[in-house]
Amino acid sequence: MDKKQPVVAFLGPRASYTHQAAQSVFPPESHTLTPLMSIADCFAAVQNDKASYSVVPFENSSNGAVVFTLDLLADIQGLCGDVVVTGEIYLPVHHCLVGRVSGGEGGGTQAQSVSGSHDATGLLEKEPTESQQPHVRPTHDLSHIKKLYSHPQAWGQCKRFLSTHLKGIEQIDASSTSRAAELVAEDTTGTTAAISSKLAAEMSSLSVLADSIEDFEGNSTRFFILQRRDAVSPPPRQRSTPQTSQSDPQTQPPPEEASPAPAYKSLLSFTVSHTIPGALQRSLGAFNNHGINLTSINTRPSGEAAWHYIFLVEFEGRKGEGKVDEALKELEGAARGWRWLGSWEAWRGGREGWDSVFEQ
Amino acid sequence: MDKKQPVVAFLGPRASYTHQAAQSVFPPESHTLTPLMSIADCFAAVQNDKASYSVVPFENSSNGAVVFTLDLLADIQGLCGDVVVTGEIYLPVHHCLVGRVSGGEGGGTQAQSVSGSHDATGLLEKEPTESQQPHVRPTHDLSHIKKLYSHPQAWGQCKRFLSTHLKGIEQIDASSTSRAAELVAEDTTGTTAAISSKLAAEMSSLSVLADSIEDFEGNSTRFFILQRRDAVSPPPRQRSTPQTSQSDPQTQPPPEEASPAPAYKSLLSFTVSHTIPGALQRSLGAFNNHGINLTSINTRPSGEAAWHYIFLVEFEGRKGEGKVDEALKELEGAARGWRWLGSWEAWRGGREGWDSVFEQ
Repeated sequence: MDKKQPVVAFLGPRASYTHQAAQSVFPPESHTLTPLMSIADCFAAVQNDKASYSVVPFENSSNGAVVFTLDLLADIQGLCGDVVVTGEIYLPVHHCLVGRVSGGEGGGTQAQSVSGSHDATGLLEKEPTESQQPHVRPTHDLSHIKKLYSHPQAWGQCKRFLSTHLKGIEQIDASSTSRAAELVAEDTTGTTAAISSKLAAEMSSLSVLADSIEDFEGNSTRFFILQRRDAVSPPPRQRSTPQTSQSDPQTQPPPEEASPAPAYKSLLSFTVSHTIPGALQRSLGAFNNHGINLTSINTRPSGEAAWHYIFLVEFEGRKGEGKVDEALKELEGAARGWRWLGSWEAWRGGREGWDSVFEQ
Repeated sequence: MDKKQPVVAFLGPRASYTHQAAQSVFPPESHTLTPLMSIADCFAAVQNDKASYSVVPFENSSNGAVVFTLDLLADIQGLCGDVVVTGEIYLPVHHCLVGRVSGGEGGGTQAQSVSGSHDATGLLEKEPTESQQPHVRPTHDLSHIKKLYSHPQAWGQCKRFLSTHLKGIEQIDASSTSRAAELVAEDTTGTTAAISSKLAAEMSSLSVLADSIEDFEGNSTRFFILQRRDAVSPPPRQRSTPQTSQSDPQTQPPPEEASPAPAYKSLLSFTVSHTIPGALQRSLGAFNNHGINLTSINTRPSGEAAWHYIFLVEFEGRKGEGKVDEALKELEGAARGWRWLGSWEAWRGGREGWDSVFEQ
């Protein structure tokens, strides 16, 4: 290992989606890519100057924000106050159902439901509607599958497939989708399956029983690149198309970019007084009054006391632009406190296919 | 069972926190309280007229909003469009570490960390800060504990205790804290423990190894009472103090009520155009322009397409009040679409102790 290479920490294990995202921006030949076991570890590595960069998941298009990342950005525990966001990566996420092919006949037989005893109360009455139907069918028989492993985020992204083809099958959380595939590979009965990437299936010598089982065809995850506040330098190749998606039209910028693409995005957190009515609106109004476009708002408990919140707001623009500086001045008077969490150049992944996926 | 009694569904199993919340408002002698296995089932029971009311968790003061409840209120799957919120319940949540008392010496010995191998990368450097210290110590030895069971929400509410006294111990998700206690009771080795309520520990004949291990002393959960839109009648005893907290000063209204208590709160969801910059601000501005106080904002993927969001906004007031009606008219012009999700009388649990907990 070349000691002079910058260290890039990422949420592991190897072959995770975050690993794929990190590789798309940081060439492994000139960076020391290092898997860590938790998002908190990735923040700590940057905070404590053990890594130049960390790559962590921020939100998934089907499943929403990653709460652990929100709480670490809000620095609720007071452990990573020097960490800022300096880049973003969008990566298409195609989940597969992976496991052993059964000895029986193949061809998309629906797994037997074992959820009959679930409704002992007689209160339930469910008929799947058209909007719930998954857009793919299994390529192999699933009737031998008795147990599923995956990361909790994946259950939320594959609800339709699971409720149609694996209804009532026990779901066991694993620390990552790659780890889920390993657990299935270790199981000698052949009756377990995992939701993971195709890459993880290959690494664990498992078969793909169903491909692209995510609910939405545009399913993708957005990652943040983190650096220390006092060591900010633009991440390399920030504007290039990632290696993993050159042939994949589903690495897109977010739909806000239908209007001319904003050059920069920024993130900050703020808290408001609980005794002054309207404090939240006045804080948000600071952006509106200066024509700044908000791209996301997230609310989390602030950790100060019960029912106190911290708000994370993302917007177009960066410090030094007149209207942003003026909005910050107005925010200063409206919020109880606020903290700058970084600016970065908006992702410009491949645009092919963009309109067909995002137009309504 | 008296067939004429209204059916009240709640997120089970029996002895769950939601059960305690439901009992505090719906007297079991005049209601048929029925546990269901998931929050989705609770919504479906009301939607399909199988239950008059359902009680579901909405947010916890330490851990934030319950994503499943948000998504069902937003009706992303199109299955429960007739369900509205007609009441709220605040319940103090005291988590206990429960299990078997070890044969060894008692007295708060710290469990041995098994996380040493975790940092094979050498990138980590963590020193616990004062703000991370838990506010209680175990009342029994924990060195025999090798495995923990609990509901995922509980891990997030007890981070400080776990990282101090049970660092690196394997955490296994259970479907509820009550179920976690049952799993520990079934384990004959005596080396597992659960995070659950004291009530669940008693029902499973387990000992309390540490009491009130939640990070924040005011830890409490807010529940919503659901009804069908076309069958709204105020839930009974909505304004009474719950049975479980008469002696507990920690059932408080939220801090917004430092100013004169609002009589009503309301909830609605809206989506915005992705091609019109500023659409989100203009939608939020509809409330600001008419002096309506927002009490929460939550953002979730809308389910329509990747990176499309739905916003859930809660505010003081109700339909029929002039300023609310005017704000709705303005929202109509600013949002792409919006949906009314109910009004209810704000919770008025015991106020004693309120200032000492919420004042900063």
